[in-house]
Amino acid sequence: MLRTHTCGELRLSNVDQQVTLAGWVQTIRDKGGVLWIDLRDRYGLTQLILEEGVTAPELFDVARSLGREYVVNATGTVVERKSKNPNIPTGNIEIRVSALSVLNPAKLPPFLIEDDTDGGDDLRMKYRYLDLRRNAVRRNLELRHKMAQQTRIYMDGQGFIEVETPVLIKSTPEGARDFVVPSRMNPGEFYALPQSPQTFKQLLMVSGFDRYYQIVKCFRDEDLRADRQPEFTQIDCEMSFIEQEDILQMFEGLVRHLFKTVKGIDLPEVLRMTYAEAMSLYGSDKPDTRFGMKFVELKGTFDTVDLTSGKNFGVFDSAELVVGINVPGGASYTRKQIDELTDWVKRPQVGAKGLIYVRYNEDGTLKSSVDKFYSEDDLKQWVARFNGEGETCQPGDLILVISGEAAKARKQLNELRLEMGSRLGLRNPDEFKVLWVLDFPLLEYGEEEQRWFAMHHPFTSPKPEDIPLLDTDPGAVRANAYDMVINGTEVGGGSIRIFQRDLQARMFDLLGFSPEEAKAQFGFLMDAFEFGAPPHGGIAFGFDRLCSIFGGADSIRDFIAFPKNNSGRDVMIDSPSVISQAQLDELKIKTVAETK
Amino acid sequence: MLRTHTCGELRLSNVDQQVTLAGWVQTIRDKGGVLWIDLRDRYGLTQLILEEGVTAPELFDVARSLGREYVVNATGTVVERKSKNPNIPTGNIEIRVSALSVLNPAKLPPFLIEDDTDGGDDLRMKYRYLDLRRNAVRRNLELRHKMAQQTRIYMDGQGFIEVETPVLIKSTPEGARDFVVPSRMNPGEFYALPQSPQTFKQLLMVSGFDRYYQIVKCFRDEDLRADRQPEFTQIDCEMSFIEQEDILQMFEGLVRHLFKTVKGIDLPEVLRMTYAEAMSLYGSDKPDTRFGMKFVELKGTFDTVDLTSGKNFGVFDSAELVVGINVPGGASYTRKQIDELTDWVKRPQVGAKGLIYVRYNEDGTLKSSVDKFYSEDDLKQWVARFNGEGETCQPGDLILVISGEAAKARKQLNELRLEMGSRLGLRNPDEFKVLWVLDFPLLEYGEEEQRWFAMHHPFTSPKPEDIPLLDTDPGAVRANAYDMVINGTEVGGGSIRIFQRDLQARMFDLLGFSPEEAKAQFGFLMDAFEFGAPPHGGIAFGFDRLCSIFGGADSIRDFIAFPKNNSGRDVMIDSPSVISQAQLDELKIKTVAETK
Repeated sequence: MLRTHTCGELRLSNVDQQVTLAGWVQTIRDKGGVLWIDLRDRYGLTQLILEEGVTAPELFDVARSLGREYVVNATGTVVERKSKNPNIPTGNIEIRVSALSVLNPAKLPPFLIEDDTDGGDDLRMKYRYLDLRRNAVRRNLELRHKMAQQTRIYMDGQGFIEVETPVLIKSTPEGARDFVVPSRMNPGEFYALPQSPQTFKQLLMVSGFDRYYQIVKCFRDEDLRADRQPEFTQIDCEMSFIEQEDILQMFEGLVRHLFKTVKGIDLPEVLRMTYAEAMSLYGSDKPDTRFGMKFVELKGTFDTVDLTSGKNFGVFDSAELVVGINVPGGASYTRKQIDELTDWVKRPQVGAKGLIYVRYNEDGTLKSSVDKFYSEDDLKQWVARFNGEGETCQPGDLILVISGEAAKARKQLNELRLEMGSRLGLRNPDEFKVLWVLDFPLLEYGEEEQRWFAMHHPFTSPKPEDIPLLDTDPGAVRANAYDMVINGTEVGGGSIRIFQRDLQARMFDLLGFSPEEAKAQFGFLMDAFEFGAPPHGGIAFGFDRLCSIFGGADSIRDFIAFPKNNSGRDVMIDSPSVISQAQLDELKIKTVAETK
Repeated sequence: MLRTHTCGELRLSNVDQQVTLAGWVQTIRDKGGVLWIDLRDRYGLTQLILEEGVTAPELFDVARSLGREYVVNATGTVVERKSKNPNIPTGNIEIRVSALSVLNPAKLPPFLIEDDTDGGDDLRMKYRYLDLRRNAVRRNLELRHKMAQQTRIYMDGQGFIEVETPVLIKSTPEGARDFVVPSRMNPGEFYALPQSPQTFKQLLMVSGFDRYYQIVKCFRDEDLRADRQPEFTQIDCEMSFIEQEDILQMFEGLVRHLFKTVKGIDLPEVLRMTYAEAMSLYGSDKPDTRFGMKFVELKGTFDTVDLTSGKNFGVFDSAELVVGINVPGGASYTRKQIDELTDWVKRPQVGAKGLIYVRYNEDGTLKSSVDKFYSEDDLKQWVARFNGEGETCQPGDLILVISGEAAKARKQLNELRLEMGSRLGLRNPDEFKVLWVLDFPLLEYGEEEQRWFAMHHPFTSPKPEDIPLLDTDPGAVRANAYDMVINGTEVGGGSIRIFQRDLQARMFDLLGFSPEEAKAQFGFLMDAFEFGAPPHGGIAFGFDRLCSIFGGADSIRDFIAFPKNNSGRDVMIDSPSVISQAQLDELKIKTVAETK
């Protein structure tokens, strides 16, 4: 037996017991004939003590040969500490060592194994196994484990069955780019790795499984943005004989359960908003609802009285949309600060042409950057519009206005709103606002490809009352689709599915599939719909992302044990890598040299 | 709301309630003005009733339009049945229908959706989603879900953390053939799919995770034998600061927990046996210990007195090993039956040259097929040898003997023993005998490749006392490796790992890796061993196989939702398949036409 206890469990009640501990040397102090070793394992730290005149001299030789991160085991007696450490659970005791041996020596780690490390990103990725020793990183993975546990407890309790779906499946043209796997037994053919188990979970509904879930790896071969990973994990769910409301209730229940059990938080009311509302009030389909600053249009949607045109201000006259937010207390911003904000929105990442402001001074006067065109009375109308739409605009505030093509102006003002929220400290990471965004459009038009694309995926059902619009105005058709948003981040999304063969065929037709292509790619699903498919729908949560939100962190990487870098490389194991000619020959494939 | 209750939950206590059910039409009976529909879902069957004069005539029109597997929902009142059906939990009630609608019609399924189906294997694989509707198949997946649940409950309770390891990893030359994934972002390079998370779980131990597990998909691109799948699931586990005994106790605990919670069985003592014992007593490293019939050697291992040579029987004289089993009650076998057994062992699948028998007649006389060479006294010595080794050989029994090269003879007699066990009804699928096989050899010699191979894998540690043999007699080195065997099937295996850099380097050297190759492939692991690696070890269980044993079935396929056939094809989705030229171009690979 290499240990009798862990380094986290001994207390005063264990005093006088003979114990054996094993772990890593965290620190050594050697002073005035007394030597202390902090021994660390996953469960905590325990102090070992050697005293000259008490401890055998040869143990001092062993102890003085130790370095940081050496792996040792030590036997000794639990004694009460003279100077207690109230910061750790084992701080009342120490181990008077009677035997000490080195299980494995350690080279000096390339960075400090402490909460604040001196290691840069690259170094910590290369030595990920050392980075994982740090409390902060280990706690993230412990949180992830707890999230998965509690997810399963909730889902199992609701009668869901976890079913494993295959990883070696079939490449499909719709959606993101697939990772593919050449088949040796079927030369010239390839498997694909699943972007999601979508069709399989639908088939499980046709099979009558009624309630399915799976915590499952998915794969997308996309150019990696800062916070994407080629392999990621979903909580994937599907239910039969349900309507949208059933799904919303069920999965509101899931996040409530997770917040309660993992974070001890009783979640307040989960808000709901249509996609159209979200876009017009926040310029985003994933608004951060921890703070207000809703959009107010001065010119725009057709039943809004235009408060900007006809005053010879060409920028607004030619704009499709003039839209602003009210920044509480913003009137104290200096001209310099406002200029800096203007530069901020003009950066390529935001892309606005400019920023108009109206300062509502404490004395009730109004001062704007467009005083040349708009009288104080005009500006008072603007203020009135804000107050009329529920945004309290009062002396001391600052209105910021962006104009232009509607979609772009909304996107830009969304960025500005989030920035102002951050600057004003309104985005508290310990506060959680959960929101359902409903009624997404079914289709979006690809200008480049000159065709319609499914906004969610081709299996999403249109709202029954919008089906007639499929012929006349496809872009106006709303889907039975929903996203869950927490603090401005989409954590999950899903839809009620098409379950009728004819409607599915029509959908493929709209998306530009020939009947032959539809049959070749999704024939099995359309066939399945003919043998008694129940109404069904589901949702998938991004598990890495959900964990990062629960952990109060921005990056999902910190919640993945062995993540890849932005080039899709695992720099620790040095993968991907070249494979042997013999492997290529067996697979009947060749690599093509890059021509530059 | 599409239903208020499932088809499995209504009882007499619900009588007079207004309910809505949804599900599939299992059967319709229409007789004497009364029409009954059995409605089915995952939870059960409920009978609907329509009566002329009571039920609205238009509902009869709907009901008479229904076919098998139509998806319907029905509203009505729960009433007590006149003729109750004690075979189903809802058999005391039926629903007097007041509304009935077709949610989706169904074509006639290509095979019967019943416990005994008329569908052949190929048809059921093509329409797997219909096969999954059958109770037998659905119950297998429910069992699998329960097994996974209970595995997690046990592991979590023991302080294990489930950590997800990556699926896109690096190809390694050791072990089975890898599936590979071309990297678009790193042209000419490939990821590999993991055959197991072996190195990652070892790195997690170096990280101090202490107790890790994962229920995880693994992949092997091997020619598929009857009961292998290219993707399969493991319960993968690793522990630090442990010795072999700790692992055996921990995972004996896991299977005890599974048998208790999933099958309600209190497992008797788990047996232990060394590899050497298993091979000499059963001719197999995975003996079925539900029955005896242990091997008894008449000539063989060097300290056994040879009871066969020198009697002019050339077959035995030239044999390395003469070994037999005692078949209780076998003396009643006719000459014809014994001839048939002889033919059975001569089949290519077994490959024996012949079979010798000794019939121990009820009158105490002995009659053998080698009476020409061996006197009755000689045969009595044989019988005495059997009894001396604990096999009760008595009048009425039959001794069956095989001879030849030792390894082959043992393999052949193992086959015969299992066959006799089956014929005598000694292999009861409802009885479970769990066995640890210990002390496997570390290495096995590949005659073809003229080099040593790791019997388990290159990370398995030799027994410390056998380390000196690494230089002098590598084949005699025993490993700290163990397999768990249930009823003659290996369900899991593992080892105490090497955790010292030097020993690991020596192991790679023995396996024919140059230092450069070892560094290129496993440098990260050997580096990790220098930064404070704890003693560690683990085990992996074949989860598909474990489920099939718990389910009392031979095939793992029945416990996988969407299995592949023997050519690695998913015939339902028709995968693998060709991919587009554009995909190949992006990946910078070409397929090479097959030259026949």
